[in-house]
Order: sequence, then C-alpha cells, then structure tokens
Amino acid sequence: MNASEFRRRGKEMVDYVANYMEGIEGRQVYPDVEPGYLRPLIPAAAPQEPDTFEDIINDVEKIIMPGAASPACTELETVMMDWLGKMLELPKAFLNEKAGEGGGVIQGSASEATLVALLAARTKVIHRLQAASPELTQAAIMEKLVAYSSDQAHSSVERAGLIGGVKLKAIPSDGNFAMRASALQEALERDKAAGLIPFFMVATLGTTTCCSFDNLLEVGPICNKEDMWLHVDAAYAGSAFICPEFRHLLNGVEFADSFNFNPHKWLLVNFDCSAMWVKKRTDLTGAFRLDPTYLKHSHQDSGLITDYRHWQIPLGRRFRSLKMWFVFRMYGVKGLQAYIRKHVLLSHEFESLVRQDPRFEICVEVILGLVCFRLKGSNKVNEALLQRINSAKKIHLVPCHLRDKFVLRFAICSRTVESAHVQRAWEHIKELAADVLRAERE
Amino acid sequence: MNASEFRRRGKEMVDYVANYMEGIEGRQVYPDVEPGYLRPLIPAAAPQEPDTFEDIINDVEKIIMPGAASPACTELETVMMDWLGKMLELPKAFLNEKAGEGGGVIQGSASEATLVALLAARTKVIHRLQAASPELTQAAIMEKLVAYSSDQAHSSVERAGLIGGVKLKAIPSDGNFAMRASALQEALERDKAAGLIPFFMVATLGTTTCCSFDNLLEVGPICNKEDMWLHVDAAYAGSAFICPEFRHLLNGVEFADSFNFNPHKWLLVNFDCSAMWVKKRTDLTGAFRLDPTYLKHSHQDSGLITDYRHWQIPLGRRFRSLKMWFVFRMYGVKGLQAYIRKHVLLSHEFESLVRQDPRFEICVEVILGLVCFRLKGSNKVNEALLQRINSAKKIHLVPCHLRDKFVLRFAICSRTVESAHVQRAWEHIKELAADVLRAERE
Repeated sequence: MNASEFRRRGKEMVDYVANYMEGIEGRQVYPDVEPGYLRPLIPAAAPQEPDTFEDIINDVEKIIMPGAASPACTELETVMMDWLGKMLELPKAFLNEKAGEGGGVIQGSASEATLVALLAARTKVIHRLQAASPELTQAAIMEKLVAYSSDQAHSSVERAGLIGGVKLKAIPSDGNFAMRASALQEALERDKAAGLIPFFMVATLGTTTCCSFDNLLEVGPICNKEDMWLHVDAAYAGSAFICPEFRHLLNGVEFADSFNFNPHKWLLVNFDCSAMWVKKRTDLTGAFRLDPTYLKHSHQDSGLITDYRHWQIPLGRRFRSLKMWFVFRMYGVKGLQAYIRKHVLLSHEFESLVRQDPRFEICVEVILGLVCFRLKGSNKVNEALLQRINSAKKIHLVPCHLRDKFVLRFAICSRTVESAHVQRAWEHIKELAADVLRAERE
Repeated sequence: MNASEFRRRGKEMVDYVANYMEGIEGRQVYPDVEPGYLRPLIPAAAPQEPDTFEDIINDVEKIIMPGAASPACTELETVMMDWLGKMLELPKAFLNEKAGEGGGVIQGSASEATLVALLAARTKVIHRLQAASPELTQAAIMEKLVAYSSDQAHSSVERAGLIGGVKLKAIPSDGNFAMRASALQEALERDKAAGLIPFFMVATLGTTTCCSFDNLLEVGPICNKEDMWLHVDAAYAGSAFICPEFRHLLNGVEFADSFNFNPHKWLLVNFDCSAMWVKKRTDLTGAFRLDPTYLKHSHQDSGLITDYRHWQIPLGRRFRSLKMWFVFRMYGVKGLQAYIRKHVLLSHEFESLVRQDPRFEICVEVILGLVCFRLKGSNKVNEALLQRINSAKKIHLVPCHLRDKFVLRFAICSRTVESAHVQRAWEHIKELAADVLRAERE
C-alpha cells in the first residue's frame, strides 16, 4: 500500500472506529456465536493472489464483529497460524485443524517462544522421571537437567536456561557455523556419563550472527532418540520458507516438538508477532495450566476451544492475528513470496559488488538477506570502518564476531528497499573504506 | 476525546504517518542526539491540567522524531515512569531521576512483572547464600526456597512459582480477605524450622476476587527483617492511588523491593501497559544480563543509559510510553483523578441500590470500583442468577468464590459509563433475581 492509498484507507478506518464508538450502545455486551464459529466462515488457506481492501473490511464487519473480542481473537489466531503453517508446508502434526493435537500461538518474541518451549520440556521430563521414580524431587531432577544449543545460538537461549534454572551447554559449530551430529553426540555422551540428563535442544535456522543453519536432518533424529525436546528457532529465516526454493532449509522440522519464527521480522507483519507451533498442545498447557474461578468459563472442558493463556507467560492477550489476516490477504502468498525473493536478490547484488572488490571478502555463504563481509586484514581496520560507517549515519550496520574475526553485517530488511539503495550504500562503504585504508597507511 | 474529535485527530495522524513515509529518504538513519537528551526537554512531572492535542503533536515532531526509535523509546519510558511514580507519590527510591538507583519499566502484564520480580529475587538470594557458603549448588538452594502470597492472590503468582521452579505457599487471609502479620509469621516460623528459605513475598493491593488489601504496614517490616524480596501487586487498584484520598491504601510500599500496577486496567492507557518499579535496578539487570556482540553499543558501560532488555523476559520492545505521554497530557492529572472518582462514586451508587434491597447482601467492603454482592441464600440460587444475567447479554458479570460463597462481581470499568447505565443494570438484575426466586419457590 503506497502513501496515497494509506491516506484514503487510514481515514476510512478512523471513521470505522468512530462509528463503532458512536453506535456502541446498540451492540450486545457478549456475542451470540458458539465456539468454533469462525473457521467455517473463512478459507482453509491464505489466498494466492491479493484480496481487495474492501473485501477484507467487509469481512471484519461480517466475521469478526459478531464474535467481538472473544472468541474471535482466539479463533482467528488459531486459523491464521494454520494458514501460515501451510504456507511453510509445516508437517500436519503442527496444525490445529481437523482436531489435530498440535497448533500455533502468537508470542511476543522468539525469546519468549524459546522460554515457553524450555519450560514445557522441563515439566515434561520431570513428570516422566517422577512417574518412573516417584521418590525423585523436582530439585534433584533439575540439578541434572541440561539443555543444548549451538555456540552460534542467540543469547536469548542462554537467558531461557538462566530463567528456567537449568544448565545450558553450547555445542561447537562446524566451519560453516552449523551444529552437526558429531559434536552433539560427543557432548551427549560426555554429559550422560557424568550423570546429567539431556532434555532440551534449540536448533537455529538462520543464526543472528551470520544466518547459518544448524543441520536439522542430523541433530533431529538424535534428539528424538534421546527423548529430548527439540525446539527449532528460525526467528529471521523462517519467513523465507514460504518460497518453494527455500523450503528445503526447513527440512528436518518433522523431528521437532516446537518451531518458531518471527513474521514481524521479514513477513511484513508489524512488531510484535512471533509465530510458534507445537506438535502437542497438551505439552504447553500441562506446564502452565491453573484455573481460578474468575477465569473459568462454560466451554472450558469441552475440548472445543483453545485457552491461549495456558500457552504463554502473560495472561492478557492482544488481537494480533488481525494484522496477520490483513497482511496475508493484502499481499497474497505470491506477493509475500515476491517480497522475500526481491530481498534475497538484493543481498546477492550486494554480495557480488563486494566480491568484485579485491580489498574485501565475503565471510559466510549468502543464503538469504544477510551479507557478512569485511576488509581483508585486521579486526582493527574493520572496527575503524564500522565506526566511520555508523558515524556518517547514511546507513547503519550491526557487526558480529565470527570466531576471532570482527565482521560487518549488511542486512536487507526495509519494506521499500531498491537496487538503487544497495548501489548507493556500496559506493558509500567503498569511499569510507578508502579513507580507512589511507589513514592506516599514513 | 469524543467521536467527532477522534475523527478529526485520527485523520490528521493518518496524514502524519503518510507524510513520514513519503519523506523518509530525507531523514537520517540514525539520530544525532546523545543519551540523556530527552529528559531536559520535557517537564519533570505530568501536567495538572490537560495540554492541547496540537501541543502534544508538536512535541512528537520536536522531541521524539529527532531521537527516532532509539534512544527516544527508552528515554521517554524512563521519564513517563517517573511521572507516573510521582502521581502515585511513590517513595523517591523507586524513581530514576537524579541518578537514583531505582526506576520504572513497562511490562506487558502484571503476570510478567511478578515473574520478573521472583526471578530477580531468586538470583539475589542464590548469590547471597553462595557468597556465604560457596559449596552450595544452585539446585540445593532452589530446593529450599519458598515464596509466599495470600490465599487471595491472583493465579499468576502461583504460575510464577511454577516457572521459577520454587515452592509457593498461600498465607490464609483474615475475615476481610487481607494477609496479616500473625498468619505470615506463623508460616515463616514453621517453614524455617523445616529448613526452608523464605525469599519472596507478593502482597496484593486490590485482589482480583474482591478488591481486598493485604496489610502492607504489617507484612512489609517482616519481609525486610527476614531479608525477603517484597513485591507489591496492585494491578487493578494502583490507578486509584493518584487520588490523595486513596493514597493511604498504598502506605507501606516503602518496605517493597518492587511495585507494579496496570495503567491499562484503569488509567485509560490502552492494553498492554503494566507499570513496574524497582528500588535497585541492578537487581533486575543482575538476573538477566547477557551481552553478545550484536547487542553491544558504545554507551553500554557509560551508566548513562538504560538497557531495558535486561529488565524483562522478551528482548524486543514496543514504544508503549508514547501512549502514556498522550494520555497523561490529554487528561492532565486532574482529569485522570476525576475519572477514577467518578467510577468509585458509581460503584457506591450500585452498592447503595443493593443495600436497599433486603433480598441481597454486599459481601466485602466496597473501596474502589468493584462491588461483590449476592442474593442472600444458597450458592445454587446465585449461580442461577449469574446464568440468567450472562445469558441475557445485556450486562456481563464475572463471579468469584469467597471462602465457600459464590459471589457476583459488578465492576465499573468502561470509559463511557454513566449513572444511567448503573441504574439500568440494577433494574435488570432485580428483574432476573425475581425470576430466579420465583422459579426456586415453584
């Protein structure tokens, strides 16, 4: 939607809200609909081509407003998470439809999703071990629990371990910054020999530092064999999996117990919207469920409804699935795929500019929208270059360390980015690099 | 703001956003301002009288836009939390200004605030005990940790205990559903004698069930003496403390380590906005701090800036302080006080209607906007009344259990509620009650 259409549609929405406020006394305080009313009213999958804005707004009035905040808020979320799961070709076990045991939920951030998965895994392993040996205390078990991730995983994984009160160990990644079977197997043997209990693994698809991919097809079967919960974190990269040519990067998700990525990062849905799926809903609700009288309701034990409060840390919830519904329909699957492809194309354009300049090197294979590059030479010269780039304030780069190397990260991530921006950024970087190299020689 | 002014201002805002999008290439990608730039630009406290909408929008352009998302997002939050703290007359130790050790942060919900406080308390006690006895493992300590709340506390407290992996014990409340010194003292003696380590207490001001108040002046000093973290949860009632006549309900907060209430519940700020203060910021950052390269920044160790990511569960943040800034200025403190007073007046109006009808009883002293009432008689007849009320869908009531009694809760909570609504609701309830009583006799 360009700015001029936004002016028109935005003002229509303002009137819609004002009309609602003015007419509110004519509405019922509680909806007439029954649980499950919504799913039959909308398609089973996202449209391939864009819908018109009129159609979407008409559906808000026709489908959402009669269901008010509840149950519309919950039911649209469940269906949108199915839509999104289908776009990614997630295994059916992760979907909610047709009375499956799985399903999706919107969390605020990938950090929360990781924590929720870890806590569910912790509860599950404690119950399992206590069922076998009733004399074991929770504390005695927790002391021995150990979770794993690659040494390239996001810091929020370590944080989830801290919060959950369990050990977290980093598996050394390979030369491509990927976790592999051999390193994992080695850690597991060592820890089990020391009496520890491996119970949880976070595999990352598209690390924050350099967009590397843990080898799910290798580590997944190991987690299953060891009865460890496998959580797959694709916070950034996940959006790309809606394109058939990138879907292979998700292969192995069939071994996972939970999967998460952030549509707010790269799928045009505004912050926050972190999409999390589990294969067994009862694993989450088992970890968090508490039912005081003031939260009881008549459909509670019917099995017909989803109580998302048992799926997350906070109790209250916002109606975040509305923005997914709008985005998926306004772009259509093809529009979203085109958006991802354009970004990947632009990152390869930047990559080839870098490769053409012998002063620079590409540090990691470019797979999606992130290019890790640096001046051949010392960390000091690269730190100086970054400092110049960020002081000039024409573009902004966030660095990382890859092993002992200080690396610059060029990320394609704006909705309106074009080839001209990439070209201009590269010219700018080259100029500043020349300054830095000149200063170094002097 | 009424609907017609909303139409006008809303459309101006749509244009503001569209203009921003159209002119975005002319803006810098990174702001020129230095950390701490914002506080000197705005008043030290919220205005007593309303500001005009023009003034607020002009300040957005002048004060916020030059600071872009960062650092404006963080700095406005810090100052707004000071404004709000001053409205409540919180002890100075909870404020951030003048280089204090305390400060406020916006969480998503009171559940999160309770969890964050419990995790900080857990880290603090583990560090303290390990400093004295380095041979103690974390698990050995956690096994003995025990947290407390009243038996009237919200279910999220029990949930925080589950997540944090520590015991939580409910202290029996007194006849007014308040936690008192004697019951707490008794539990502490018993648990300490059994080798447990009391480390955390949640005191509730305004319980969810019946808006009762734990006796902070009694339990606060005990927590301090026992070196237990005291977290005060006033999720609903906290908004009322901006009125001098209700401020006494907060007396004893000076004994607390952390305090929380939800402006999104009763202070006209849209969901979500849960305001949490701590006396020592380092207690939170000590529990959560991790610093990978991609999150490092040049001002990190300057002491000048606040890294809210160390204060909360998620990593990402929204710019929620903007809505506080708008609301506080559009109403002024006096406007917000008038809003609270009107609600309390209306709940007393409902209370007196109930008291005039001998078939009904008031179950708990009415202090703020909640009236707990019931038909004199069995739980069954009250359950039948509730069922009729909620089936009729003219009003909606959420019940609770107080000891063995099933109780109806009439909550004044809408922005546009008037005496006429209360009168109409009561007439409606009386009619349905007559039906229920008639049906019972037949």
